[in-house]
Amino acid sequence: MVTFPSVTSQHYGIGLAGCGTVGTGVIRALLRNGDLIRQRTGGELTLLVKRVLVRDLTKSRHSDVDHELITTDWHELVNDPDVHIIVELIGGTDLAFDIVSRAIELKKPVVTGNKALLAERGAELFALSKKYNTPIHFEAAVAGGIPIIKSVQEAFVGNRVNSLVGIINGTSNYILQRMSESGLEFATALAEAQALGYAESDPTLDVNGWDAAHKAILLATLAYGFPINPAEIHVLGIEQVKPIDIDFAKQLGYVVKLLAVIREHDNGAIEIRLQPSFVSKNHILASVNGVFNAVAVNGDGVGEALFYGRGAGQDPTASAVVADLVEAARSLSNENGHRGFLPWRDNGRLLAIEETTTAYYVRFDVTDRPGVIAEIARVLAEHLIGISGTHSPVNLENPDAAFVDMVFLLHSCPYGKLQKALAEIFTLDCVNSAPVVFRIEHL
Amino acid sequence: MVTFPSVTSQHYGIGLAGCGTVGTGVIRALLRNGDLIRQRTGGELTLLVKRVLVRDLTKSRHSDVDHELITTDWHELVNDPDVHIIVELIGGTDLAFDIVSRAIELKKPVVTGNKALLAERGAELFALSKKYNTPIHFEAAVAGGIPIIKSVQEAFVGNRVNSLVGIINGTSNYILQRMSESGLEFATALAEAQALGYAESDPTLDVNGWDAAHKAILLATLAYGFPINPAEIHVLGIEQVKPIDIDFAKQLGYVVKLLAVIREHDNGAIEIRLQPSFVSKNHILASVNGVFNAVAVNGDGVGEALFYGRGAGQDPTASAVVADLVEAARSLSNENGHRGFLPWRDNGRLLAIEETTTAYYVRFDVTDRPGVIAEIARVLAEHLIGISGTHSPVNLENPDAAFVDMVFLLHSCPYGKLQKALAEIFTLDCVNSAPVVFRIEHL
Repeated sequence: MVTFPSVTSQHYGIGLAGCGTVGTGVIRALLRNGDLIRQRTGGELTLLVKRVLVRDLTKSRHSDVDHELITTDWHELVNDPDVHIIVELIGGTDLAFDIVSRAIELKKPVVTGNKALLAERGAELFALSKKYNTPIHFEAAVAGGIPIIKSVQEAFVGNRVNSLVGIINGTSNYILQRMSESGLEFATALAEAQALGYAESDPTLDVNGWDAAHKAILLATLAYGFPINPAEIHVLGIEQVKPIDIDFAKQLGYVVKLLAVIREHDNGAIEIRLQPSFVSKNHILASVNGVFNAVAVNGDGVGEALFYGRGAGQDPTASAVVADLVEAARSLSNENGHRGFLPWRDNGRLLAIEETTTAYYVRFDVTDRPGVIAEIARVLAEHLIGISGTHSPVNLENPDAAFVDMVFLLHSCPYGKLQKALAEIFTLDCVNSAPVVFRIEHL
Repeated sequence: MVTFPSVTSQHYGIGLAGCGTVGTGVIRALLRNGDLIRQRTGGELTLLVKRVLVRDLTKSRHSDVDHELITTDWHELVNDPDVHIIVELIGGTDLAFDIVSRAIELKKPVVTGNKALLAERGAELFALSKKYNTPIHFEAAVAGGIPIIKSVQEAFVGNRVNSLVGIINGTSNYILQRMSESGLEFATALAEAQALGYAESDPTLDVNGWDAAHKAILLATLAYGFPINPAEIHVLGIEQVKPIDIDFAKQLGYVVKLLAVIREHDNGAIEIRLQPSFVSKNHILASVNGVFNAVAVNGDGVGEALFYGRGAGQDPTASAVVADLVEAARSLSNENGHRGFLPWRDNGRLLAIEETTTAYYVRFDVTDRPGVIAEIARVLAEHLIGISGTHSPVNLENPDAAFVDMVFLLHSCPYGKLQKALAEIFTLDCVNSAPVVFRIEHL
């Protein structure tokens, strides 16, 4: 059981909302490295957990927290006069919203790892943050211990961000890697990831792409300065990825990665996409394996830069929370401004998904008879879509199969144009099911 | 020709000491992205170049600076009441020291890209920085646009740094890559790098390892909190690297990289080494090619993290200077502390090079007669050094050559122990020249 000393003028009291894996990690990191934090920050700054909000008082993991600090009433946490900074780690967008917004109204800086909250309700919360001149820090919400938020906001403050491309969901990355290495089906690889603790018992937001999409929304907001409506962005998870396409990707020199792609176009429109994509096996992002995350930033000054590290887990995420706690504490002793993000414009234009332009891999399930390639190629030609290659491996087990997989690699064109061509191709007699499409990213 | 508006309370005047490649890049970045910097920092902060120190008034590259701003007298630059922040980009350790120390005495924050100055005279300058409560920012001194300084100091503030391993000299990295790709001799690859502008006309500090060593000293000081005497660290450049060893490395599954290795040992001793080393071709550092830099940080919270980007060049380095200028400006409006680094202990213990322990690649030039391997192996055994493998490719052009290259791969042992064994082996009749040693880094 840990007891904390009483507050002095250089001590900052923390109210911890949520004491699960990451919350426990924060408590432990502060105990383990409190001296180092003081040394690094000039000798005085001390962070003390003064109050802990939990849902269930009986959970055993609270055994290393002084029981007198624990409450199940969030008002007690937020209103406690010894609590100067709120750490929100309970997740969800309802109670978390109440806690964060009330804390800001009380001018208590907030540190959160809640990507859903900020992606869904960031506009309201950042408006409050501005009104009460009180920061919201959220390094822990994107890519765990990787300091991508601080880097975009501070280290690249003098850069126009041309693009951000990232692998920001470790669970999906692990599953895709296992499918690639061992030819596993999605469901098998997911079950394996769950058994190893790399996927949660409810993996929905990881595998349907929305965990990564929330992070992408935060990155785009940070880079381009306006809140983004989640309904307006294009999100596709990995649930529908088949081993056959991963295998074809490999044969063609690519790796399938769940990529967040954020890019500013010359006309000022912002492209935001989240989907499994083909990446050249020679690109550094292709080497990002297992549960690791990576974000490649292209800035007009810095050029290409890449950040790589653990995107989740107790200690890496706690590392980000502790860094934000130091920021929050510093802001409390500085009336002239904090480091929390604030939008600097109300809105911007998002590029419609139909306008987004990449090369493509398209796999058709076709009836194997003369003329099939000619028919598909004719439709593509009529739509002015160029073919850079075709790939149709002989089925060695059944060389006379009636149905075969026929892959077309297509030159860059707007996605809307591709959709029209594919709809027409799907009406051909020889095409048996909806074509499978992956984007090929030229990074 | 650019003229700057007059200073207001929210405007910060910059005195630029040195207007070469990077200085010009800073002027251009502030002009190009001044609005964005204001937006990102809350709408007010404006950075204005008010004075420029040059050695030679006639140089054409000063044509885009208002001539009234230019001076050749450093006192004018530092004393100018319109100059609030000094950017030191003139290099060297004498005049640069005078400018930086005088600026700090005048309580003008300093931004510098001068790694030699801080590595050689950091102890004095950081003491002044502390005395006058005025920061020295030096993101531009290490790894160009990569925010490794800010990340170690702020993002990883809650982490004990276990190790920092980096490729932090782009010139050497380019030369080694070209030697590997095309079998070039060092001198040929250097000449090519010079022709392409990747190496300076005087490449001494790049190829003898000292440019990287200065950066390693700064990283170690930052991570462990004490100034380091350059005379106490082990530095080896790439001048002596031969194509044959690069080729053998490749055959054995390694890549030769000029690595900075900084590591804290359990007994608190700090290991700092800079030398060409063997890295497994599967490690992400092996993929760092051309003039790119990368630093892998291992922290007790964040685990393994890696930063990758352009380590030099006008715009990437200017990007780091601009970020530091924003820090410096913020510190001027905050009496409660700045973000400049300050040592937090006077000294620490460095691990003697004899104590540093890795695996090794050792190549002997031997007379090809029966018993050679046995004789070398006997001496190694007497010194209790284990052999993990041998490699002695047949000379296809001359299978009966009297002299051959014989490679031993050795298990981990302290370098001092290896040196003693090699000194004894060198006395053997069959060994014709001093053995060539590379460390094999298990990262």
